[in-house]
Amino acid sequence: MESLETNVKGYDYGKTAKPSPITLKELELLKATVLFSPTDEENLRKAGGVLIEQADAIMDIWYELIGSHPHLLIYFSKNNMANLEYLTAVRKRFIQWVKDVCLRPFDQAWLNYQHEIALRHHSIKKNKTDEIEAAPIVHYRYIIAFIYPITATIKPLLANKGHAPEEVEAMHQAWFKAIVLTVTLLAYPYVRTGEF
Amino acid sequence: MESLETNVKGYDYGKTAKPSPITLKELELLKATVLFSPTDEENLRKAGGVLIEQADAIMDIWYELIGSHPHLLIYFSKNNMANLEYLTAVRKRFIQWVKDVCLRPFDQAWLNYQHEIALRHHSIKKNKTDEIEAAPIVHYRYIIAFIYPITATIKPLLANKGHAPEEVEAMHQAWFKAIVLTVTLLAYPYVRTGEF
Ligand code: HEM
Ligand code: HEM
Repeated sequence: MESLETNVKGYDYGKTAKPSPITLKELELLKATVLFSPTDEENLRKAGGVLIEQADAIMDIWYELIGSHPHLLIYFSKNNMANLEYLTAVRKRFIQWVKDVCLRPFDQAWLNYQHEIALRHHSIKKNKTDEIEAAPIVHYRYIIAFIYPITATIKPLLANKGHAPEEVEAMHQAWFKAIVLTVTLLAYPYVRTGEF
Repeated sequence: MESLETNVKGYDYGKTAKPSPITLKELELLKATVLFSPTDEENLRKAGGVLIEQADAIMDIWYELIGSHPHLLIYFSKNNMANLEYLTAVRKRFIQWVKDVCLRPFDQAWLNYQHEIALRHHSIKKNKTDEIEAAPIVHYRYIIAFIYPITATIKPLLANKGHAPEEVEAMHQAWFKAIVLTVTLLAYPYVRTGEF
């Protein structure tokens, strides 16, 4: 995992203050629900190899989507002015997360960092990492809605490195499952006590 | 829409007591976030034609998934005994919902009924429609996780009626967007006030 250690400002993988409220046993049940298998794990590794080289292209697509929708850009803004410093810092951590989803084992450290990411969207921790002023919370509705674009836009990129259509499809299904799994974990701070 | 009026026990489309807390204007923003276009609407209508004839096959697949996972079946159970009457009643309303997603316009009545469905998963209204005793709430984590199986398992069925692969793909993307949209609306009662 040495190659995953990077010097990204505000990226605290393995060093989060709080453990995830979700246990590894609960994660297993969630994995079963999204039909996540050892083959998916292999396909995610493979997808990682394909996607990491194209990380900037991925971020261009997602940021274009956010930038072209005022109701999304507002979360990076104050007084309707998007904060470029904030967007740039988050972009680097987001690329790091693409690597983590594809290449890290879904273990306790991974769970803990997904929870940290959840807190960073929620008012509990939003804006703190970059010490900026912007909207105090990302509303949950858009996090879940983002499952669609973040899944669909990845497929053409997976096809860019000469894999057979069945391989592309298998990598894409693994990515889709991993996204649903992550976004489920992002819900935790938003959901009423006992209802998650 | 005449053909959509059916006599399904407990199915209250158009007659819900409470209006949705989400406005049509907010729905438009969600549709923009999942990139839902008029073409998707056409493709959903087309998907409806393909899926409705296969409604029982769809339900067999989903119920098989629930039935084979004790952590899911528990929501239809009391004292670890699944309630068959409950499963049967919900199955009929679930088929009705597949029709509604594909064939109804996403208007105020549709929004209101998605909210009613949300309340029926939540402790606010679970078990009341069928007047049975079972787990008091479906935990939100599995509702969101279900996006994966409910999207992926539909694709082969869409291919069963002789459409070209591009048509199947277009119908499937429309379905995927519609599912993400619906599951977003299902979150409402679970999310803390002001955070949805
Ligand atoms: C599929 C859904 C989403 C995923 C998986 C996701 C993932 C991420 C990740 C990995 C980060 C960086 C975490 C870190 O600091 O290491 C991040 C930060 C952020 N995301 Fe998202 N995101 C999602 C949806 C959204 C949406 C819809 C918005 C609204 C436009 C949004 C706004 C932000 C903001 C403002 C930050 C910075 C938070 C802070 O102040 O630290 N995200 N997101
Ligand atoms: C993609 C996610 C899901 C969707 C779209 C969905 C959709 C529906 C629909 C349409 C109904 C019938 C509503 C009516 O009464 O007219 C229903 C009922 C129900 N669903 Fe789900 N469901 C989802 C996930 C789940 C999961 C994961 C479970 C847990 C196993 C579950 C358990 C139930 C139960 C127990 C009922 C009956 C509620 C009552 O007492 O009225 N659902 N669902």
